[in-house]
Amino acid sequence: MVDIRPFASADWPEVWAILEPVFRAGDTYSFPADIDEAEAYRVWIELPVATFVAVDPAGCVLGTYYLKANQAGPGAHVCNCGYVTGDRARGRGVASALCEHSQRQAVEHGFRAMQYNMVVSTNAGAVRLWQRHGFEIVGTLPGAFRHPGQGFVDAYVMYKTLA
Amino acid sequence: MVDIRPFASADWPEVWAILEPVFRAGDTYSFPADIDEAEAYRVWIELPVATFVAVDPAGCVLGTYYLKANQAGPGAHVCNCGYVTGDRARGRGVASALCEHSQRQAVEHGFRAMQYNMVVSTNAGAVRLWQRHGFEIVGTLPGAFRHPGQGFVDAYVMYKTLA
Repeated sequence: MVDIRPFASADWPEVWAILEPVFRAGDTYSFPADIDEAEAYRVWIELPVATFVAVDPAGCVLGTYYLKANQAGPGAHVCNCGYVTGDRARGRGVASALCEHSQRQAVEHGFRAMQYNMVVSTNAGAVRLWQRHGFEIVGTLPGAFRHPGQGFVDAYVMYKTLA
Repeated sequence: MVDIRPFASADWPEVWAILEPVFRAGDTYSFPADIDEAEAYRVWIELPVATFVAVDPAGCVLGTYYLKANQAGPGAHVCNCGYVTGDRARGRGVASALCEHSQRQAVEHGFRAMQYNMVVSTNAGAVRLWQRHGFEIVGTLPGAFRHPGQGFVDAYVMYKTLA
C-alpha cells in the first residue's frame, strides 16, 4: 500500500530525514558525506526536472526519487534518477515501486532511456534490483568509488532503453 | 611548437571562437547546440577546477581543455576533461598535447583517474586518439547521443587510471 506522488514543499523535513543518513553514510551515492541541507535541497529538489515521494496510507514518506536529464543537448533524451528509501520502507517493495514509477514518468517527460552513472559495485542489492527492472550493466568504472569501509571499489554504469 | 598554459581572461574571445563552431555543430559534445556565450563561459571556465589553452609561438590560441571532478564526494577522485581544438590546430598534435598535459595536471590536482562520459562513437578520430593515450572503452551507451546527421548513435564511456 504505497502511493507515489509529486514532492510538495511540506514533505521536505521527512525527505531530508530519509536522505541525510544515506548521504552521511557515503557508501552508495557520490554526494559529499558532509553535504548540508540547503545543498541537498538543491540537488534533490531544485535541479531535477521532477521529484516524487512514496507515502504510506498514513501519509508518512517512505522513499523518494528525482528525475533529470543526464546530459544536455544531444544527450538530453537520456534521463537519470536517484532513489532513496527510509528504514521504514524495508521489505515493502518501495524501491521497486519507485523504479517502475520513474520509468513511466521518464517516458511521459519524453526521455528515451535511463542511465545510472555510478552504481556502487558493493551495493549488491541495488545492482540486482535494477537488473530485475531491466537495467543492464553497460560499463564498469575501475575503483571509481571511494567506499568508507572498503576503499576504492568499482562502480557500474547501468542503462535501460525505454522507448 | 605548442605551449600550454592556464587560461587567462583575455583569452576568452579566442577560446569562444574555437568552442562556438564545435558546440553549434552538435556532433561531438553534449552541450546544447544553441548554448549562449555566457553559459559556455560558465561550463568551460567557471565550473571546472582549471582551464588551459594551447598557444602557438605568436600567442594565438589553438585549443583548450577544462579539468574538473567528474562526481562529488566518494567519486571526486576521478576527473573529467573536455578538449576542443581549432581549425588552425589540425595536424599539429595539439589534441595529443592537451591530453598528455591534462593527465599530468590531473595527477597534480590529486585525481587518481580520468573519465570521459560520452565519447560519440561516430567521432572515430577522437576514440582512436584517446585509446592511443591509454584510455579504454569501459562502457557503451546505446543510442545515447542524438547526432544531427545520423540520428541516435552510441556513445562510449572511456576511462584511464592515472595513479
